[in-house]
Formats: sequence, structure tokens, C-alpha cells
Amino acid sequence: MSNTFGRKFRFTTWGESHGPAIGVVVDGCPAGISVEEADLQRDLDRRRPGQSKVTTQRAEEDRAEIFSGVFEGKTTGTPISILIRNKDTDSSKYDNLKNLFRPGHADFTYWAKWGHRDHRGGGRSSARETASRVAAGAIAKKYLADRGINVQGFVSQIADITWDGSNFDLEEIERNSCRCPDAETALKMEEAILAARKEGDSLGGIISVIAIGAPPGLGEPIYGRLDAELASAIMGINAVKGVEIGSGFRAASMKGSEHNDAFEMVDGIVVPRTNNAGGILGGISTGAPIVVTFAVKPTSSIPIEQETVTVSGEKTTVRVEGRHDPCVATRAVPIGEAMVALVLADHMLRGLGSRAK
Amino acid sequence: MSNTFGRKFRFTTWGESHGPAIGVVVDGCPAGISVEEADLQRDLDRRRPGQSKVTTQRAEEDRAEIFSGVFEGKTTGTPISILIRNKDTDSSKYDNLKNLFRPGHADFTYWAKWGHRDHRGGGRSSARETASRVAAGAIAKKYLADRGINVQGFVSQIADITWDGSNFDLEEIERNSCRCPDAETALKMEEAILAARKEGDSLGGIISVIAIGAPPGLGEPIYGRLDAELASAIMGINAVKGVEIGSGFRAASMKGSEHNDAFEMVDGIVVPRTNNAGGILGGISTGAPIVVTFAVKPTSSIPIEQETVTVSGEKTTVRVEGRHDPCVATRAVPIGEAMVALVLADHMLRGLGSRAK
Amino acid sequence: MSNTFGRKFRFTTWGESHGPAIGVVVDGCPAGISVEEADLQRDLDRRRPGQSKVTTQRAEEDRAEIFSGVFEGKTTGTPISILIRNKDTDSSKYDNLKNLFRPGHADFTYWAKWGHRDHRGGGRSSARETASRVAAGAIAKKYLADRGINVQGFVSQIADITWDGSNFDLEEIERNSCRCPDAETALKMEEAILAARKEGDSLGGIISVIAIGAPPGLGEPIYGRLDAELASAIMGINAVKGVEIGSGFRAASMKGSEHNDAFEMVDGIVVPRTNNAGGILGGISTGAPIVVTFAVKPTSSIPIEQETVTVSGEKTTVRVEGRHDPCVATRAVPIGEAMVALVLADHMLRGLGSRAK
Amino acid sequence: MSNTFGRKFRFTTWGESHGPAIGVVVDGCPAGISVEEADLQRDLDRRRPGQSKVTTQRAEEDRAEIFSGVFEGKTTGTPISILIRNKDTDSSKYDNLKNLFRPGHADFTYWAKWGHRDHRGGGRSSARETASRVAAGAIAKKYLADRGINVQGFVSQIADITWDGSNFDLEEIERNSCRCPDAETALKMEEAILAARKEGDSLGGIISVIAIGAPPGLGEPIYGRLDAELASAIMGINAVKGVEIGSGFRAASMKGSEHNDAFEMVDGIVVPRTNNAGGILGGISTGAPIVVTFAVKPTSSIPIEQETVTVSGEKTTVRVEGRHDPCVATRAVPIGEAMVALVLADHMLRGLGSRAK
Repeated sequence: MSNTFGRKFRFTTWGESHGPAIGVVVDGCPAGISVEEADLQRDLDRRRPGQSKVTTQRAEEDRAEIFSGVFEGKTTGTPISILIRNKDTDSSKYDNLKNLFRPGHADFTYWAKWGHRDHRGGGRSSARETASRVAAGAIAKKYLADRGINVQGFVSQIADITWDGSNFDLEEIERNSCRCPDAETALKMEEAILAARKEGDSLGGIISVIAIGAPPGLGEPIYGRLDAELASAIMGINAVKGVEIGSGFRAASMKGSEHNDAFEMVDGIVVPRTNNAGGILGGISTGAPIVVTFAVKPTSSIPIEQETVTVSGEKTTVRVEGRHDPCVATRAVPIGEAMVALVLADHMLRGLGSRAK
Repeated sequence: MSNTFGRKFRFTTWGESHGPAIGVVVDGCPAGISVEEADLQRDLDRRRPGQSKVTTQRAEEDRAEIFSGVFEGKTTGTPISILIRNKDTDSSKYDNLKNLFRPGHADFTYWAKWGHRDHRGGGRSSARETASRVAAGAIAKKYLADRGINVQGFVSQIADITWDGSNFDLEEIERNSCRCPDAETALKMEEAILAARKEGDSLGGIISVIAIGAPPGLGEPIYGRLDAELASAIMGINAVKGVEIGSGFRAASMKGSEHNDAFEMVDGIVVPRTNNAGGILGGISTGAPIVVTFAVKPTSSIPIEQETVTVSGEKTTVRVEGRHDPCVATRAVPIGEAMVALVLADHMLRGLGSRAK
Repeated sequence: MSNTFGRKFRFTTWGESHGPAIGVVVDGCPAGISVEEADLQRDLDRRRPGQSKVTTQRAEEDRAEIFSGVFEGKTTGTPISILIRNKDTDSSKYDNLKNLFRPGHADFTYWAKWGHRDHRGGGRSSARETASRVAAGAIAKKYLADRGINVQGFVSQIADITWDGSNFDLEEIERNSCRCPDAETALKMEEAILAARKEGDSLGGIISVIAIGAPPGLGEPIYGRLDAELASAIMGINAVKGVEIGSGFRAASMKGSEHNDAFEMVDGIVVPRTNNAGGILGGISTGAPIVVTFAVKPTSSIPIEQETVTVSGEKTTVRVEGRHDPCVATRAVPIGEAMVALVLADHMLRGLGSRAK
Repeated sequence: MSNTFGRKFRFTTWGESHGPAIGVVVDGCPAGISVEEADLQRDLDRRRPGQSKVTTQRAEEDRAEIFSGVFEGKTTGTPISILIRNKDTDSSKYDNLKNLFRPGHADFTYWAKWGHRDHRGGGRSSARETASRVAAGAIAKKYLADRGINVQGFVSQIADITWDGSNFDLEEIERNSCRCPDAETALKMEEAILAARKEGDSLGGIISVIAIGAPPGLGEPIYGRLDAELASAIMGINAVKGVEIGSGFRAASMKGSEHNDAFEMVDGIVVPRTNNAGGILGGISTGAPIVVTFAVKPTSSIPIEQETVTVSGEKTTVRVEGRHDPCVATRAVPIGEAMVALVLADHMLRGLGSRAK
């Protein structure tokens, strides 16, 4: 009922996980930005199922086709329509789920809202929809990169394995299966995921996304605050249960004298010395790195037997076989980046004209 | 630049903390709801400065006047304009802040965005604006109460003092100065706040808001999800740095087999047995209590000396004297309730017509 | 249910004709524009009842008070709240209308929609609401004037008295009671209106609004076209039944070879030689004057006896006494200008960032 | 930059006239409506080029493919993605237009806005985009038909040939090439169009769209009025220069005593005896037929030689050969119907919940 995100830089997604295709229409993208299908593919490949041994084995190449809005390699200012065909849609695995509600899954709520549900892989509630966001986000990233803004995510925790913040290696993030900035921690995370899969269980995790280079002044108080819109963008990703900006929940046990970031001048620019604010004060960017952290719950689809009820209300149990990620945190990295990039691109455009000059 | 919240049940706030008044226009409220000024006053009094010894001593009675949209005690379907006069606006205390940026405060970002700032009490960035939301929220609560939905908040943590979840006493919440459901914990919280004030420092805290009675089916996937809009509504409150739905960040270290809430039938209704989901699956309400938790940072305005720079870039220090809350968590309770109520009222209306029938 | 207009430069109006006040909140106005109450008053006086012998004699001074968003004579980028008190609200005249539906009036439709209506002067359906738009429009005009854009309206027809297009005298428009650019025609219009009032009847008319100086490039195809939004803005004014851009309905009987405006270069700028397009092609401004023409119906409230039914469905007749304009065309001029100015200001801001450059 | 229309029942169109395809995503359509591709095809065939001797001979079969949102013949409440492939896209005919601005065409304004233009058939400014609206409108019509609301358009004037209002024959409309309700008038219209084409010229026309069965109460004053949104929807169709509701411009020369529609009771329902209001009072439907009339200008693309300038500002002349309609009025009928249906469907949904009970 509400499949459009953003105000100036907007996108609308469509498509079910087991229909012929999914897609997205990006509207409000300025004319003159270099975009080609390969730009989208890079991030789609990072989100793609089957990319590593810690992800689901559904084999989708997630090839993005651009149908409009790009002419001779540049955006034209008209809507950009992108289509991604569904290929590996073996719906037969879902037959036993047709008449019951999987615990932790949107089966029940979609049925409660619309009086039916697409049991084949979840329909719109499937995380497959996030491929559309990643494609849209890749365009936002191009726009931002031209303005010196870069968005990078990584995994900082899986189950109880937490990266301690040391040994940050940007290059390492994409080198390991878990997208952790530290190789050693990544290895432990991988082991934990593989062990959980073996047990037929699943794990949660924590992801951070950092945007560097965003100018001060982004955000529209009071009800288009940058932090509020980032929170919405991130909480709206499948499986996310918590979002923090900067210090997040740690702020609760800090004192004002600790938490306040002192201002200083660096190269003629006002800069906060520390960044508990996570780059945002009063809902507006400070120019410091924007830091968003979020938690994903363990995948709800697991082969372990669980209690539930059927559509007609009888007690039953279910084992969700299908092909599911034992932990969605690693694939959530490009999705989180996409959503942050889309919010920032939107605010870059919305901020124009805030002063009469 | 963006002072309107909501799609069907919408409100627009206006006014600066040191101007003649602040106010809110509520639009899209159905006709026929009983509303009187006393309904608004109840929650305004809970948010009001000077209400207890742990809050700022600014003396505002925050009297709400309804100018339109209510006729003979009932809403008419036309916009409801509410005005709250500013009375205790002693701007002289702010003179020393005119040319510098308070650390942790929106001074700098407002100045970066608009080329000026209202140094008198923060202008729009002041938490005084939240009185407008509370007034609007009171109308939303009336609408919800008529439909059996109630929204209640409380404080679960201040600094390191954490309510352990036992001794929940609904009546206790409004009996103590800290809005904690357990009297004993509340007392410790109060002591901590008073001690911090004595030191010229401030504390953060954690608040939970629970909505009971919301039907299954609220929320508009993919980009009008109930969890995403709650996250936005809450993160947009002054000083909030983190938001959780249900299990929140704890989900990161849980297993799927633990986190999934089994479904069962109770009195002919499908009900999740546990509520790690916090009442929301796939962005749609399940019918279980909706649980939102959020962290507020310690108040940034503190009398302890802090380093900063002036508007022209010189190093300086500042002590923020004024009249500020040593901890905003207690007053954040009615604000959080208001925002949750406003989101739910909006979704109650937006959800109409989702099935052709 | 929908009292907000515009996307970037937005305004929300509130208030009933017989409540304590009406008002408007302007949001999205850039910071740094010089605005004072006198700027609003100029146009409010042109819309004000009782301004001349051809208007209603309700005596409202329509004094605009600015409550927020302007500091030291300049807009701050925060919402501008404007309040206009209702003074001459003698509701007793409306008592006989309480239980019936006035023909041609919104009584019936408001009742059908909301199950009640404010019989005292029409509540929100009263043209009194347009004072709020005129106040908002005055701010838009200031913003536009700083950018060399001027908006001027006039009356070209009342009943069958039509200005023939000759003797255009800009100064004359505000000199005569009918706002016609030709003094002689104005006199005949005035006579017609006074004669109609004597008969207890009312007249319709046609108004044109011309915006000069708007740059080429305003408008957002396909669904934010400039012509479409002007049409909406104008058709939404009370009593309007038709809207034209440029050639309007005359286009139906023209040939392409006549209607097409040839392009030529004038002072290095591409300019259409004629202006059948009314300054808009493909929904985007050409840089030529933007010409909007609209028709208002004769005032529905007339003292002549008319047939109707009561709220409970019985046949009855009604004479609407009250104080009503015998022709709303003359007062519609500043309202039409305001709506055109508000649309243009909105599009000036929305157009920013359309090219990546 | 703004390719989405509607608030609850929304659609977003994309695609250029000479790209691989065009399409539309319909969002907010309730679940449970029977829709199949044949439903869309009926109206697409009425809009299709090459359908009769008075239209362009571009041969497009305009086959609509539904990619999502419909499952087992019923809408699911998720976005409905529709794709229409472009087949007969001979761009070579447009080569001579590459460097000049066609008079009366959006070439210049698109170039002014975005710094480029798609000279191949106009890109987004081409009326080809309207196929997407017709497809979306067909779904709206299904929704409305289930609720007893029918939308029908016809041509009432072409050049100076005007249907006199007599001999209305509903069946006749689709029997003749001009969609005129009177066969004899239709024949004269056809002759006029063929004669104009022979001369290399084009003609304008007037179309009416009538919606029967809409309940009283549709429309959201003040800024979501039904008349305002219909005006926007219709004025936003390519080539439209004027829009009227009910009496339209004739209202200007009527008296109040003539124009007011007396109310009476018919079968227990309050009904206006006449319908000068065109079914709308105060921006809200009365329950009477909704009557919208609009004028289209003569097609701007004509083979007659016209003066213009090149992109670099030199004087030149142009003959637009291509394949163009000599008069767009006949194909505008299904487009006008679609837009009216889309506005009504949106308001049917938006109106839900306007009263508390």
C-alpha cells in the first residue's frame, strides 16, 4: 500500500519473490549523472544469494536491466525503470507452508491485513524485494560519490562474536564472507554461522553504516530530521529490530560532560572533536561522519521444528526447509548502505533552496 | 522546512521557544470525536517544565487553547488549531551564547543550514516544540481510546540505574518523579538525577512505550511499515539516539529458535505466545502489545565548562547556565507516548480500504 | 481532511468563518526573505469584505499577526504562523438556515461527508478561508519579487460585460471597484453588479492572472506539471467552475498552424513570438508570461426565494439574507494571484537540483 | 521529476516513446479486485494509434503485461507493475528535428529544464506516456464498477463542428471514429479531420467525461477538493488547455437564481434538480453526475512549414513529418476517462474514516 520511499530522490519498488520479476522505478534523480548497468551490478552482487558459503544457496544472478531514464550513459531527469528477473523460483518447497503461519514471519500479518498471502517465498514480504533497493541505492551512491560522499557498511557483531573495534581494515570488509573489518573476527563469525546452520538454527547480528563527506546542513527539522529518516529507512529493512545514531543506547549511561562533542576549528571548518552525535545534531548533519548502527534478528525461517497454528486455527508444527540464510547480517550490509545513500541523496536535493541568499 | 508529520492523521507544528507562542494544526482527524481542552492539558501537565524536583524550573503552565475544528465538544473533520502561549521567556540568560556553538546542541547545525540561529533558547530546536506534539498526541489518544487502544510509557533506566522488570505497578508510574514502574528504583533514579544536577552535569536514560489493543493489520509495507514509522517518530524526538522494537539489539545475540514467537489460538484469535517481535512482523502489527524502547542522551546544556568555538571560529569555553533538565527521560515519557499514538492513529485511518471486500 | 497545499513551499490553513480566528502556517519558505505584517496587509485589504460598494458589507479588518518564523524582519526557514481574528461574526442571521440545505452551497456536501455542518456562515466552506491563502500568497509574492517575478490579476468579464482587451491600464486595475483594466468597462460592470444586488440576485465573472518574469524550466512532468498544478490551485478557489491556460477553450477551434507559437531569438533568449501556450509547453514554463484565466459562478447565497429541502428531507424554500457579495469576481483577483504565486514559489524551489551539473 | 499521481490509489509511470518499453506501477489498489490483462486491453485499444482513419498510423498493438500484484486473477494489495513494449519506433524520421525546437512542442522546455532532450519522438513528453495512464485507469474503472460507478467520455466539438446535445446515443460513441454521441455530427467531424490532414494542418476539440454513480461526500476540502484534483488530472493530459466542471465558463454570464441547483428528495435521497454544479459543491461530490469538460489544442506536430530557431539560436524553419494525429480529441476520450476514474478511485479510498463512527 505504500511502496514509494523518499521525497525528491524517490523510488517505488514492485514484484513478488516468486513472480516473473521484481523492479524499481527511481524518480527525481537529477539529469546528467553517469549510470550504467554495471554500477548497479556491483552492489547487487554483494547482496545476491549464493555469493558465499554463509548465505542461502538460492541461485539468482540478479541481473539489473535499465528500461528508461538513462540515455547515452547519463540520467535524463526522467524516471529510471529497473527490472530484475526472478529465475530460481522453485515454489514447490513452499507447499507445506500454504495453510499455516510460520513463527517470526510476516505470513500471519499479511493474511490479517489483506485476507490472503503469497505463500510462495513470502511474496512482497520476502527479502528479495531488497534487491530493488540496492539497485536504486547504487544510483544514489553515484550521485553522492560525484559530490565526495561515500557510504560504507560492515558487520560488527554476529551472535556473541563482537568485533572489538581494533584492526579496522577497509579492504578486508569485502574480502571475508562476513563483511567484518577484522579478518580474525570474521573467521569466528563464519564458524558460528556454519555451526548454527548445521543445527538448523539461525543467528542475529549488528551492522554499522558510515557515510563520510556529507556536508553540514542536511536534514529538515522538525519532521524531516535526518536521524528520523535514517531510522525509518533502516528499521524498514527486513529483520531489523533496533537502530542507533552515534552513541545510541550507550548514551543512556553517559553524562552530559562525556557525551557532548566539543567543537574545534580544523582547516577553517567547525568540527566536533569526538562524534558521539554520530554526525547529527538537532536532526541536521554536522559534517562529521554519519554513523548508523542496526541489529538484525536471527532468520525466522529455520528447519528446527516450531509450534504454530494453521490458517483455520488448529495447532500444528512446522519445519521451514527452503533455502534460507542462516544469518542475514552479511547480506544486510549493502542493503543498509543503499538505504543510507538513498536518504542522503534525497536530503542533498531537499536541502537546496533553504536560504534565499 | 518539514514541519508536518503523518499522512492521514497529520499535524503541523510551529513556533519558537522564545516567541509569543507555539502551536500545532491537526488535520485529518475524523469528525465526531469528543475532545476538550482538558484532554490536552492532562498530558501537557505531564510534559510541563517545573512539574517536579527532577525537571527544569522554567515555569510554563502550557495552557492549550483550541481555536478551530471542535464544535460543541466534538471534532468536525476540519483542522484543529491549538495554541500554547510562551510565558516565562527570560531571554537574557542566553546573551552569552549568542556568538558561540554549544557542544552537543543544534546551534551549529541550524546556523550551518540557515545562516542564522535563534540563540534565545534554541528557537525551533528547543524541546519546547514537543508540547505541540503532546497536544496533538492527546487527540490521537482520544481517537485510539474509543477503539480500545491505550498507550503507556515509563522510564526503565537512568544512568546506570536499571529497572529489573519486576514489581511492575502501572499506578506507580505517575506517582514518582521519574515515571518508573517500581517505586524503589524510582527513588534511586531521583537521587542520581539530583546528584548530577549538583555536579552541574546531566544524565541519559531509557524509556519504553507500550501500546495495547492495536488490532492486527496496521502498517503499510514496504515503505510505510509500522516499525519504520515508529522508529522515525521516536528518533525524531529531541535527544533520542536509539530506538528498538521488541527484542531490539538483544536480537543480535539470540538464535532463531529462541527469537521466533510461536503462534497459538487464544479465544479464537491467533496470538504470538511470546513477543520478541514487539507486536510487529513484516512491518504490520500482530495484535500483540507494540513495544518501542528508546534511549535519550544526557542533556547537552550543562553548567560545567566545555570547550567550543565562536561563530567566527575562535576557541572559547562555555558554561550553559539557563534552566535545563538534568535528565530529559522523565519528561520524554508523554512525548514518546504522543508520537506512538500519532503513528497508530495515522495507521488506523490509512489501513481502511486495504481490502475490496 | 486535506488542508495543506504545496510540496516545498507549503501552507496549511485552519479556522472557521464564525470561530475566534482563522490562520495559516507557511512551511518551507527559505530563510532570509524580508517579510513584515504590512506586506500581508496590502493583499488582505484587496480581498477584505467591505472594501467597496460592490462587495459584502461584513466589516472585517483582517489584520494579520505573525506568530513565528520571522525574526528581525527576515524569515528564518522555520514555519511562519499567521493568525487573523474574526470580528464581525453575527451568527444570528444564520439561524433560519440551520436545518436546510442552501442551493448551490456546500451545506449539503459537508453534511453528507461529515454528518454535520457549521451552519454559521459556512464554517470552513466559507470564502473567509481564502484570507489565509492571501496572507500566505503575500509571502510567496515577496520571494518571487526578489527574483523578478510579478503576478497581477484583473477582471475581464462580469455577467455579459466583457472587456475587449483594449485600453489596458495596469494602474487602472486597483482604481476601480471591479478591478478591470479599462475604466469605462469597469463602470458598466459596477452598474451591473449594483443592479443585480437590487434584484436580490448575483452575477458571475471571469478573471485573468498573469505572471511575468518566470524563468523557463518550471514544472515537473508528468504529474507535477505547472499547468496541472495551476489548474488545481485555481479550481480549488471557492466558486470557480473553469480554468484555462493561454488559449484555453479557444484552442478547440484553432488550427495547428495558427495555434503553434513560432520560436525566435530575442536578446539571446529563445522566445515564443505569440503566446497561445500561455507560457507553458509540456507542463514546463517557456519564459513567456504565464496566463491563467478562470470563471467564477454567481454567488450562491441570494435573498431571492429558492426551493430546497430540510435536513430531514421535507420540501421548503429559503431566502439567504446574511451579508454576501453580489459578485465574487472582484475579490477573487487577489485570491487568484495568491494561488498562482504560491504555485510558482513552490516550483521555483522544487526545480532546484534538476540537473546534476 | 514527479511521475507519481494520487495519494491512496497511486500510480507511477515511466518510459520514453522510443525506448524499449513504457510502464506503470499502480500502488494502493485494494486487495481482492478481479483484474486481468484483457481489462486493460479494452481501453488501450481505444487509445491505440492506428485504430481508425482519423488517427496517426504508427502501428502499436500496446499489449499490456502484468508483472506483479495480481495473483489468481485478483489484486493482492501489493504494487501492480504493467509493462507495454514499444514496437514501431522508427526514430530516423526525427533526425532533422535533433537540433531545433518544434513550435508548440515541449522540445524547448525539456531542454531548458534538463539541458538535453530526447528528440526521438519526444521521450517522456510524447503522448505515448498516456498509454500507461490508460492501463492504470482500467484498474481504477474495475474498482469503481464494482461500486456502481461508471465513467464515460465523448467528443462534443472538433474545430467548429459542435454536437448540439441532441440525439445522445451511448452506443454510438464507440461506433464512429470521432467518439461523438451523434452519428451525423460524427461524420462531419471526420470529414473536417481528413480535410485538415490533407492540408498538413491539425484541429483542436472538446471532450466531456461524465461519472455516474459516485456517492455524495467525495473530496477533501480545502486542498484536496474533488474539483481541484479533477482539474489537475485533466489539465495534466498532453495538449489540454482548458477544464470545466459543470457549467464551467458559462457560469460567468449566469445569474445566481439561474445557476443554483434546487435540492429535492427523490427516492429518499437529496438530489439537485439541475446540475450546473457538475456534481460537485464546495469541492465535494453531491451524488449527481460528475461532469468534466476539457479542450485540446490542435496537434503541434504538423507538416506545414513553420518558423523556429535551432538549439544554437539560429533562425530556421521546420516541417514535422513523422506520423501524427491530425486531431487528438478522439484518442483523448479514454485518457480523460482514465484520469477521472483514477481521481475517483483515489477519493473513494481517501474518504474512508472521515467520520469517527
